Amino acid sequence: MASIPHPLSALSVDETNAARDAVVAAHEGSVLQFRLIYLLEPPKAEVVAFLELEHAGKVTAETPRPARTAQVSYDVIGGKKSAEYHESIVDLREGKIVGTKAVDTKHQASLIIAEFDDLAQACKESTEFQDKIKEIELPDKFEVVVEPWPYGAPESDDGENRYFQALIFARDTSSGNPDTNFYAFPLPLIPVMDARTKKIVRIDELATGGKGDPLSGKTHKPAVLEHCAAAEYVPELLAGGTRDDLKPLTVVQPDGPSFSVTDGNLIKWQKWSMRATFNPREGAVIHDIRFEGRSVLYRLSMSDMTVPYADPRAPFHRKQAFDFGDGGLGNAVNNLTLGCDCLGVIKYFDGVLTDASGTAQSTKNVICLHEQDNGIGWKHTNWRTGRAVVTRRRELVLQFIITLANYEYVFNFKFDQAAGITVESRATGIVSVVNIDPGKTAPWGNVVSPGALAQNHQHVFCVRIDPAIDGHQNTVVQEESLPVRMDKRTNPNGNFYEVRQTPITTSVGLDAAPFNNRVFKIQNTNKLNSISGKPVAYKITPPATQLLLADPGSTQAKRALFAKHHLWVTKYKDEELYAGGRYTLMSKHEIDGVSDAAARNDDVLNEDVVVWSVFGLTHNPRIEDWPVMPVEIMELHITPSDFFTRNPAIDVPSDKDIGSKATNGCCN
Amino acid sequence: MASIPHPLSALSVDETNAARDAVVAAHEGSVLQFRLIYLLEPPKAEVVAFLELEHAGKVTAETPRPARTAQVSYDVIGGKKSAEYHESIVDLREGKIVGTKAVDTKHQASLIIAEFDDLAQACKESTEFQDKIKEIELPDKFEVVVEPWPYGAPESDDGENRYFQALIFARDTSSGNPDTNFYAFPLPLIPVMDARTKKIVRIDELATGGKGDPLSGKTHKPAVLEHCAAAEYVPELLAGGTRDDLKPLTVVQPDGPSFSVTDGNLIKWQKWSMRATFNPREGAVIHDIRFEGRSVLYRLSMSDMTVPYADPRAPFHRKQAFDFGDGGLGNAVNNLTLGCDCLGVIKYFDGVLTDASGTAQSTKNVICLHEQDNGIGWKHTNWRTGRAVVTRRRELVLQFIITLANYEYVFNFKFDQAAGITVESRATGIVSVVNIDPGKTAPWGNVVSPGALAQNHQHVFCVRIDPAIDGHQNTVVQEESLPVRMDKRTNPNGNFYEVRQTPITTSVGLDAAPFNNRVFKIQNTNKLNSISGKPVAYKITPPATQLLLADPGSTQAKRALFAKHHLWVTKYKDEELYAGGRYTLMSKHEIDGVSDAAARNDDVLNEDVVVWSVFGLTHNPRIEDWPVMPVEIMELHITPSDFFTRNPAIDVPSDKDIGSKATNGCCN
Repeated sequence: MASIPHPLSALSVDETNAARDAVVAAHEGSVLQFRLIYLLEPPKAEVVAFLELEHAGKVTAETPRPARTAQVSYDVIGGKKSAEYHESIVDLREGKIVGTKAVDTKHQASLIIAEFDDLAQACKESTEFQDKIKEIELPDKFEVVVEPWPYGAPESDDGENRYFQALIFARDTSSGNPDTNFYAFPLPLIPVMDARTKKIVRIDELATGGKGDPLSGKTHKPAVLEHCAAAEYVPELLAGGTRDDLKPLTVVQPDGPSFSVTDGNLIKWQKWSMRATFNPREGAVIHDIRFEGRSVLYRLSMSDMTVPYADPRAPFHRKQAFDFGDGGLGNAVNNLTLGCDCLGVIKYFDGVLTDASGTAQSTKNVICLHEQDNGIGWKHTNWRTGRAVVTRRRELVLQFIITLANYEYVFNFKFDQAAGITVESRATGIVSVVNIDPGKTAPWGNVVSPGALAQNHQHVFCVRIDPAIDGHQNTVVQEESLPVRMDKRTNPNGNFYEVRQTPITTSVGLDAAPFNNRVFKIQNTNKLNSISGKPVAYKITPPATQLLLADPGSTQAKRALFAKHHLWVTKYKDEELYAGGRYTLMSKHEIDGVSDAAARNDDVLNEDVVVWSVFGLTHNPRIEDWPVMPVEIMELHITPSDFFTRNPAIDVPSDKDIGSKATNGCCN
Repeated sequence: MASIPHPLSALSVDETNAARDAVVAAHEGSVLQFRLIYLLEPPKAEVVAFLELEHAGKVTAETPRPARTAQVSYDVIGGKKSAEYHESIVDLREGKIVGTKAVDTKHQASLIIAEFDDLAQACKESTEFQDKIKEIELPDKFEVVVEPWPYGAPESDDGENRYFQALIFARDTSSGNPDTNFYAFPLPLIPVMDARTKKIVRIDELATGGKGDPLSGKTHKPAVLEHCAAAEYVPELLAGGTRDDLKPLTVVQPDGPSFSVTDGNLIKWQKWSMRATFNPREGAVIHDIRFEGRSVLYRLSMSDMTVPYADPRAPFHRKQAFDFGDGGLGNAVNNLTLGCDCLGVIKYFDGVLTDASGTAQSTKNVICLHEQDNGIGWKHTNWRTGRAVVTRRRELVLQFIITLANYEYVFNFKFDQAAGITVESRATGIVSVVNIDPGKTAPWGNVVSPGALAQNHQHVFCVRIDPAIDGHQNTVVQEESLPVRMDKRTNPNGNFYEVRQTPITTSVGLDAAPFNNRVFKIQNTNKLNSISGKPVAYKITPPATQLLLADPGSTQAKRALFAKHHLWVTKYKDEELYAGGRYTLMSKHEIDGVSDAAARNDDVLNEDVVVWSVFGLTHNPRIEDWPVMPVEIMELHITPSDFFTRNPAIDVPSDKDIGSKATNGCCN
């Protein structure tokens, strides 16, 4: 019994391979292509029962543990199309499948890298594609680069075909350096491949005009790259080289980190405890988050995101990625390296990923954990005595990074000593560009490099917050600060404002309202704060950012219904984890996403609730985003609000940092 | 000539004393009380002419420099009230007054610490006050603490009297430690002093009830502190002591900082150059901000702030501070110390302040300058080759901190390598509390400690941005991203959105609109970006925060008109620096603030414009804010937008940090 891993630990390599074996055994004689194998978390009720025993110190070798189960998705090759894509659940104790289904053909399985390879190969083999390339007068020593993309926002006449599209670029090979930046040389072609036949079925020729020009049709001359210019970013190719006046700034932790990691994934730091797992759909997931032993969140994860592009010219409406759901995350996750992805003393976590044969491999350093200093934490000076007490704000950061073709996202889950949680998203990488004729500009983008139009787009994220504020029966309350008219009886001097609370009774999508100071409190109304008399709570301040701009009737909007509200409140349901639905690749409509969950009209008062926070970035690129953009930082704050009886960081020591030095600044 | 300081340098101790001497000489035989002496910046036209020569390398010993002038405010004691408060301008080259005025008695001079001392003394000498204290059964070994406050939001029948009020607390002296936290023991009295007579003219007795109780009248029993509880924060008094599991995290810069400071206040760092000064009204001010030698801003400063309280019970409407204009800043500025206010290698700047006799003294370490790491700056991985290029985001931080009685603000001007500027404000310190009867709660605050009600309040800040985007003729353009209906001709797939630009033609107050992605671009329309063809610009994203809540008819609102819009655009005028007006102490209406400046309806198209950004925090205190609150962080971003022709940070080296270490995390 004791050898059964903790219910909140990811599958090991051995467990993953065992799951694969069970599926292979069940399909003897068939050729299988595996897509994803990862932990199916046990039903919450079972986990909660186990955690209660665990935190009471009552788990022994005899304590029953929830069954270990794997979810396995795979194709049965060569059969009927309708019986191709399967999902099975494997009970790892039994070593066999306990549930399986052929997934409805209206859904597409998440992509695997092999399909991207197929697309590159299909382009190579397509006479039509090669002919079109020949029509273009590529500069000397330039090679064609095929950049596979999901076929986002399909049309109804695309039927149930499984398509991939590719953006096409050309790369200057003359330097011999394999990292010359091909994005600076976009070609006006988008080939489309049928993933079942592995053939190019269509090549869209892209309009390259600008303001006032037709929205479709080839306009470029054969020498379409003639007016483009190199835009290198790798240091050895950088025109002018790198700057030489940046002196080292090093974080030193002579006594090691303040955190510990035991039992594989149990993290303890500054009164916090939590478990971290990694899976190929959500990346890092944090479980059973507690402060001073008190339960705060059951689970915290990046649930989904969508990146729709706003160029109205067909087929650019199909540039819409779901970077988690489309299947890219596991393939896209970065292997983090010491010293440049984080500073200080760093703990790395590996992840388990599988290849097309279902074979598991440990992937190095997919999550890193470190501490960072974030300025002053709290300060007060007694002006009578001159005594200043000042503490630093130390944060624990759990980071993962993904690369989606041209673009990267840095996700940081940050925990601070004052019991606050911040989910930070940094957008960086290379903005997506298309070819534009010389001298043209366009209302749907910005010319960031000669001949390269960076198209306007949005990034909309959804963070899933499964709260457990001193238990699992929680209530979400909307709170606003509202003006009150001057009135002799209640507001004689006009300075009063009302703090109005509205409990959310039924599952629903809600919006940010910063000018009303709208916040959402997740309360446990069954437990009152002993000092204020108010229910213990954590507060979410929904970031006031723009929601999805696409017309509600567009496919872009219909497949991303989660992006139409800033905050969703739903009733907990096992396996309901993905805001955009389980199947986002080529989806035409969001199915079983958060919008459907909210539409159940569940009672959410004093229930096991889930809160989904949606925020984003409308990104109309600036020249300064080229060739690699400086990070755009977005943050979601989850902070205690009458959960404790004092500032939880009041006992942080105010020792001086030993390594600081004064300078006269003149001897540089 | 060469001995004349740079026009953008603060007055030295000698210059300040010379200014004082000139005023004393002009008032021979009178008794003077000095309030403020600091640099009167030369007319912009003269400074700009000088800067142009300077940046062209053409300044010689013979180059004429703008006159050095001091502004001196002082009282002529014993004269008529109408001729008491004076402001003079001293030409320091001539050593004499070149302009002087007795300020209209409708205005109040900014306060000086001597007046706070007077108030404490007046309480001591007031029989009425001492009698009221006697009525209260103070616990053994508790002493009365008088906490002076400006008399905010006066009533019309307060006339032109100069009043100060005091909040009253009691301090436990039994430990012998002078830093026991008296804020935990609020007494329900507010004495009011006439500053001319130095007598207590009235003592307001405060209601101590809660929800459903009368808004005025004494309700407390004599033992009003009986139900209060200690709330210490100095480490040696902290119940349970400080935590012992926080290991050192040190910032080491073995080769020193990357910045230089020469000529007293000329800062150069990573392609940036700027000059910093300190004055007792605005704190740190940054001048002549350039990147790669190109002018970005002429001047950047914290212009004003107001903190209105929302407890409707008289006289709490008079709790409204203007922490810059009321006169507290020079008195309130912190002397920063090594290692706890900042990490790394730190350059400190001293400031010059004066006492009541006008004597200048150098005040140590009022500004500090250091570098900090802020995570990943940009990253891209070429997934074909696996080559990752990742840079850190280094920031230069110019910091000052002020303590206003119970509260502190940390102001950081941050410059990054990608040519962005962030103005950061951190609110910390002790929330203002009043006594509340046992068992009561109130809709205008939160009981954060037994017997202590923290009143709801707002902090509204105004940052003054005097742009010089490649010169001084600039245009502010409002830009929004707006949905467009699906339409066969212009938006066939519904994914297009419009980026709509509206130039601001006339001086005006404008609002944030985050759901429209509203940003404001400060353009130089006379200079187009060579790649995008768009005017060079910097972009301001107005923080979407709540504006002032007080009823527009209230004194609180009328004296803070600047707080009714998020962004003001005005035409530059010499000496127009303070959003809330020059005289905020006891003001009944904002006069000559930004609202009046906007009301001039000046043409601001392609003119010398000033942009004022207003943002704030509605602070309904949580228990976790007690006894000292964790920082609440607000940020204003000013970023280049087609000002450059590439990411200005693209040449930041991607070297690994030498001091990072990996840990297995288990040996803690």
